[in-house]
Amino acid sequence: MRYSKIPDETVRRLPIYLQGLLFLSEQGRQSISSRDLADFLGANPWQIRKDFSYFGGFGTRGVGYKVEELAKQIKRILKLNVVHKTALVGVGNLGSAVLAYPGFRIYGFDIVAAFDTDSKKIGRKISNITVEDISNLWTLKRRKINIGIIAVPRDAAQETANALVKAGVKSVLNFSPCHITAPRKVKVITIDIAMDLARLPYYMPVS
Amino acid sequence: MRYSKIPDETVRRLPIYLQGLLFLSEQGRQSISSRDLADFLGANPWQIRKDFSYFGGFGTRGVGYKVEELAKQIKRILKLNVVHKTALVGVGNLGSAVLAYPGFRIYGFDIVAAFDTDSKKIGRKISNITVEDISNLWTLKRRKINIGIIAVPRDAAQETANALVKAGVKSVLNFSPCHITAPRKVKVITIDIAMDLARLPYYMPVS
Repeated sequence: MRYSKIPDETVRRLPIYLQGLLFLSEQGRQSISSRDLADFLGANPWQIRKDFSYFGGFGTRGVGYKVEELAKQIKRILKLNVVHKTALVGVGNLGSAVLAYPGFRIYGFDIVAAFDTDSKKIGRKISNITVEDISNLWTLKRRKINIGIIAVPRDAAQETANALVKAGVKSVLNFSPCHITAPRKVKVITIDIAMDLARLPYYMPVS
Repeated sequence: MRYSKIPDETVRRLPIYLQGLLFLSEQGRQSISSRDLADFLGANPWQIRKDFSYFGGFGTRGVGYKVEELAKQIKRILKLNVVHKTALVGVGNLGSAVLAYPGFRIYGFDIVAAFDTDSKKIGRKISNITVEDISNLWTLKRRKINIGIIAVPRDAAQETANALVKAGVKSVLNFSPCHITAPRKVKVITIDIAMDLARLPYYMPVS
């Protein structure tokens, strides 16, 4: 089955639904109504039904959604049902946190390589990954590593992105707090860990 | 002016627009068309115009949006035009990265306190903040700190959230990879740093 016309906004929400479903599944929950799922996720039931309708809507009237099956289907749609070999560049605090973070594996990302420029870090093992010299980045293609994670200082971010593209990665997750550009065929997602915080004050009562 | 009925989805996108506008402003850009802004942000021009229409739409036909003014207005809507005193709990790798991250200040968040349970960390200075014993968390109310950031191991996340709520915080940014609950009056946003990565494979060409 192909799902070609899913709006970006829906693609953005699917991992949120998936995360909730995986949690519910872990808790032993087998089925859930769209209203309860919406409540649990803090989302809109109408939105959830509409998002799911892009791939045919999986709910059954009166029964709701089957938690595990729905999670599996979303994983398949997001192409998370295969393991994606991933490389990290920059093993500072944030990079080390990324290496230690259990969440990546849950979504099918296997961080198999880490690079840094700091000779004190090169050769050290962090979360079972031996840090390599950045000059080895060109080996990614041969090692079939298609995804790069950038966790370097802001000033080095664009240069790192260029090197990753040159090494053949198909997509980049950028944690550096700056805008980076890449050829159109390479998908870049920039995560600003402060940006999510920026939504909070809107919801805070005036004190 | 009050903006009471802005949909959550729009509130979720406003920081993304703001981030882009701040970047453009930093580059010296003074005005931009909605089409160019959409291109720059990788968003839909129709969506941007619709989102902005909730507060009266700021663009001028033929001129477009004034970058700095629009950024200022979005900051005001998101209540980011005042400084929010913020406390961090958990000074491991991720917590240390949060303390060092310049982005929070840009959005008006001033991380003024950090707490940990580890006696080796208590008393140490990290990014100019002296780490305090978690048992001092009750002082937040007196110090008028309304926002808490959780960066503790998964097993301690809910307990930390409870302690923050007890200490009077109005909202919580949770970096621990788990679902946490709080009273309805406290807004909780959970950030799963892996979740954004989960969107990437969908966009990757089949190799």
